[in-house]
Parts: sequence; C-alpha cells; structure tokens
Amino acid sequence: MVLAAVLGRNFLGFCHHELLKEQRVSRTEKFTLFDSSRDLPWKTSPLKTLNLMFSTGNNVIRRNGIQVVSPDISAPSWGPEVLGAWDDEYGGVVINPWSLPSSANAFASALKTSLSDWKLKGKRGIWLKILEEQADLVPIAIQEGFKYHHAEPGFLVLTYWIPDEPCLLPAGPSHQIGVGGFVINDKREVLVVKEKCSCICSDVWKLPTGYINKAEDLFSGAVREVKEETGVDTAFLEMVAFRHVHQVAFEKSDLLFVCMLKPLSSDITIDDREIQAARWMAYDEFISQPYYQEDHMLKKAMELCLEAYEERYCGFIAHQLTSKLDGKLSYLYYYGGSNSCEI
Amino acid sequence: MVLAAVLGRNFLGFCHHELLKEQRVSRTEKFTLFDSSRDLPWKTSPLKTLNLMFSTGNNVIRRNGIQVVSPDISAPSWGPEVLGAWDDEYGGVVINPWSLPSSANAFASALKTSLSDWKLKGKRGIWLKILEEQADLVPIAIQEGFKYHHAEPGFLVLTYWIPDEPCLLPAGPSHQIGVGGFVINDKREVLVVKEKCSCICSDVWKLPTGYINKAEDLFSGAVREVKEETGVDTAFLEMVAFRHVHQVAFEKSDLLFVCMLKPLSSDITIDDREIQAARWMAYDEFISQPYYQEDHMLKKAMELCLEAYEERYCGFIAHQLTSKLDGKLSYLYYYGGSNSCEI
Repeated sequence: MVLAAVLGRNFLGFCHHELLKEQRVSRTEKFTLFDSSRDLPWKTSPLKTLNLMFSTGNNVIRRNGIQVVSPDISAPSWGPEVLGAWDDEYGGVVINPWSLPSSANAFASALKTSLSDWKLKGKRGIWLKILEEQADLVPIAIQEGFKYHHAEPGFLVLTYWIPDEPCLLPAGPSHQIGVGGFVINDKREVLVVKEKCSCICSDVWKLPTGYINKAEDLFSGAVREVKEETGVDTAFLEMVAFRHVHQVAFEKSDLLFVCMLKPLSSDITIDDREIQAARWMAYDEFISQPYYQEDHMLKKAMELCLEAYEERYCGFIAHQLTSKLDGKLSYLYYYGGSNSCEI
Repeated sequence: MVLAAVLGRNFLGFCHHELLKEQRVSRTEKFTLFDSSRDLPWKTSPLKTLNLMFSTGNNVIRRNGIQVVSPDISAPSWGPEVLGAWDDEYGGVVINPWSLPSSANAFASALKTSLSDWKLKGKRGIWLKILEEQADLVPIAIQEGFKYHHAEPGFLVLTYWIPDEPCLLPAGPSHQIGVGGFVINDKREVLVVKEKCSCICSDVWKLPTGYINKAEDLFSGAVREVKEETGVDTAFLEMVAFRHVHQVAFEKSDLLFVCMLKPLSSDITIDDREIQAARWMAYDEFISQPYYQEDHMLKKAMELCLEAYEERYCGFIAHQLTSKLDGKLSYLYYYGGSNSCEI
C-alpha cells in the first residue's frame, strides 16, 4: 500500500508509459519512497530510495533484489499463473499492473492462483490498479471479490481484504477542496461575480470560488480562480476561515477556505463560460443582499473578512517548511508571522 | 451532475435498494436537493424538493412530470434503446442506474443510441453511475469513450464530455483529511504513541493521528482517534494549525489538522492492532527526540501546540452555523469566540 501510494506516480507511471510505447530501456532509476498511504506526516517513515534496474537484454526488472515481471513477459519469473507483486509495509501486497495478462481468462486464472497463494502466506490487504485500457479485467476482479477503492481518469484501484477481521485499509480520497477569494480594494469595494447556471442563486453577487487543481496549494488556487473568473491579479494575504460540510458533491465532503487577497490590478475580464458578470461592489451593498442576510454561515465569513481588512481580525498565514517525511517543502498554515508563499 | 451528486445518496440509493429487492412500492417520497456538485457554498442554490411517485400498477415513476423507467422495465417509456436519464443544471445528463440493461449487448446498444441522441440535443457532460453488481458494463462504457471519474466500495462513476472544448466537469474527491490530537495534561505531559508498522519511524513517539471517517467533523475525528488508540477521553479546544501536502496516499493530497484536546481521563488502554505502546511523556522529552529536531514542519507544529497550552497562541475554534444552501448546521472554523462543537 505504501508502495502503491508512491509508486502509483513514479514506478507504475513509468511502467505504464513503457508498456504503451512497448520500448526496451536500459538504465537505473532512483525513486523516492515515503510512507503515507494510511499514516500521517508524523507517523511517516523517513526517506528511502528504491533502485530499479531496467535491462535491455532480458526485460527483467530487479527491485531491491526482487525480480518483477517486465511489460512483455506474461508471467513473473517465480512461476506461471502468479501475478507479479511486491509486499507493502503493512503485511499487504501491491499487484504490479505490468504483470496483468491482457487476456481476461489468463487474468482470471492468475488472480485466483495469486489470492490462494497470498492467503496461504497470511497476507492482508491486496491492492490492484487497473489501467483504463485494461477495463476488461474489472468485472473479473469484482467477481473474485475485489471492491472498488478509488478511481480517476486513466485508472481504477480495487482492494481485497484477506483477514477474517474488520478491514483496516484506509478509505480513498474523501474531500473536495474549495477556495473563495475575498478581494477588497482601498475604496472598500469587493470583487464579486454572478455565476452562469440555472440555480436560483444565479442572480446573487458572490465571491469568486472554485475547487483547487490537483497538487495545487490553497493560496495558489484562490489567486488562480479570481484571475480566471475576473481577470484581476491578486496576492494572498491570509486564510480568514474555513467551512467543513458533508454529503455534498459525489456524496463526499467539502472544505472551503476563505482567503483574503490583495488586488494587484482592477480591470475586469470575465470568463464567459462560467461567469455572466463581475464587478467591484461596495461592501455594504454586497453584504446587504437578501441571500447573505439569510445565510448565517456566509454572512459570518464575510464579516470576518471585513474585520481582517480593517485589521480587527487575523487568520492563518502560509509558512513553507521542510518535512523529514519526504524531504519536500510544504505549507503549514497558522496564526502569526508572514507568508512564505511561492505562487 | 447536480442531481447526480445529491441523488447518488437519496434517489439512486433508494432505487438500488428497490432494484435488489425487486419490490413494488406505492408511495410518494420527497427528496431534498441542493446544488454543490461543482459549486461552492455561496454559489449554491437554495433548497428544492423533488417529488417521486412510485405507483404499484404500472411500475412507472414520474419525476416532476418526467417519466423514468422503473426497475423491471428494460426500456424507458419514451422509446426503446434510450437509457433513462434526467438533465442536470449545467446542460448535462445524469443516467439513471435503474435504466441500465443487465445484458451487456443491450447496454452497449442503448449507450450508443443515447449518446447520439444527447449529442444531437447539444448536451454537455454525461454522468454514469455503475453499481458493483453491474461491473460487466464497465468495459463497454470505457469502450464507448467514458472516463473513470471516481469510485468507492459499491459503485464506480464515469463521465463523458460531449462539447468540442475543454472539459468543465469537476474532478472527483482529491484529498484525504487527517487529524492529530495534541493532548497535554496539567503536568505538562503529552499523550504519545508508538505505531505498529515496519516503518523506520516506528520507534518514534508521536501524537495519535488518523484519517477522519466519512462525514465526520474534524474535532470529532481527533477525539475519536485519541480514544481509539489510547483509550483516553478528551474534549476539543482549538485547531492549532494545519498542513497541506501533495502527492501522498493514492497520488492525492493530504490536509492534516492539528487539534489541541483537553484530557478528560488519564488511564491508557491501547488498540494493539495499530499501536505498540502509548504513554504520557514530558513535553521536553517528547520534543527532544531526534526525529522532531530534524523535521522542521513537525517541530513548529509542536511548538505552536505548547504556545497554545501556555496561552501564548490562539488557533481556530469550531462554530456551528446554519447555511441557506442546504438548511443544515455545519462548522465554520475561525479565530475567536468559543466552540459550539457537538460530539
């Protein structure tokens, strides 16, 4: 699982690329591993590296001495009918997408054999990543007792829990992350938009908001959304507040972060695919809209933003720090200090 | 899409239940709709209700006057070969899982016909939810050009974008949400645990942490994790800080919220499935562990917790407020005031 989480992006991503291109390569690559698939930063193991040797001649890859089947060999070297895989750090197994036979029958047979083998060995959670072009294998995995875990364009991940006890595998991604940009100028005017949609509230002036992109930071997402919807350039000042709500999009939960942004330009150019209008509106006129008076959550958030503008309130600032868990710089949001955002 | 988001839990959930039980029902149900599938709270339409009439006689359901196929009719009333569906508020279409033929061939044919029909009508995003027991239909949808969107145990959702322009459909859930509980007693001792895992850091004393459960609030998750791992009862005091990190579990991002909790009991009972040891440890001994000295992110978070304990720092408090978007109480986290948590 640990490997699945990380190698999903490095190792498997590379393998998939090779698989599609049907190339032979000859090089050694180092991959950084960190353990976060069910743990959290301060439970996480320090950096490790994994050496992968891709050899032109025999198409065999050695991973820390363990032989893993290569793209154009249908069965792994330790015997026919068993899927290529490696162990994770929780007594589980990560199946190597390279080793999935293209034939549905061969996959069905290999999956049965492999599960029996892993059960005998006392393995726990089994992780199976199926690429879009392998979709024929999905019904077979489900038939065998695998459950959907998560998916995104390009692949689907399924799991199988062997022990006769409650499943300890972590759930898939559970939240959408939204950002709202409160942009106010020195004339106390707020940058507001009207959405293009058939919602009843399509006639309400609102803050520019949206979901953050993959691997995007909160402050970057807020600045981007404001720029996309209104054409106005801004800089992140502080995280004023955030809202947590459940059972919204896709039966999941939402976290919405309200960001105070400083305008760096004033001319408005709307994105007419999503926005019907945008303007600078006096704060008092903005907050006096009936919709805001009826929505206590929204009204309070807007009042906090004004307090922050008037320096009667302070939210969280983004501080860039290094973590031992992955050696990467990431952001810790807390009160005080000054931003170290990199947009 | 809007309907897909909400009905996924109400309408579709109910239909699926009926489908499995092959029952006939006769009643009218009201379903609450709110629009959050791509919008955010202050872009969201107010409450609406949807009347569903289930009639015993002809097994036909009328949804706001639109006839939708019922579980045991293979083709919808507006003609054979077209999948039952309804429009969303963005010019898209939500396919009704009820209307999916069980036969793969029938589904393939109906899907083709339906797509042609929707293209002619200028529809945009198509949403297809396939239940676990319908897994045979997955390869057909992929073959037809559908893309995986998201999945969880029980079902898979795919999408198809018709317009000849960049896809505007929102991505699926992108984040795992973690919580860490900083529990410190009046002797300045911190409640710490050692994980059961083969990680190199398994010998480090850490805070109890974990991912929140589905639809669980942050403060509830922190209190639950501490109770599960150590047996100690606590109460939420404040959200000290949070960390945002990318490309961790499942190639997704993590938000980890550090919560200051007040101990309500002191006796320790560990969950020996996940924890090898737990204890109360003097803060100075805890923070002086080499791992903490080498991890700037973690060290800073722990220092903030101590400052909060010594009342030299204030984080965010959880305030329960009503939102017009769904009429529900949810939480706004911001600085000041006092908690209104309901655990």
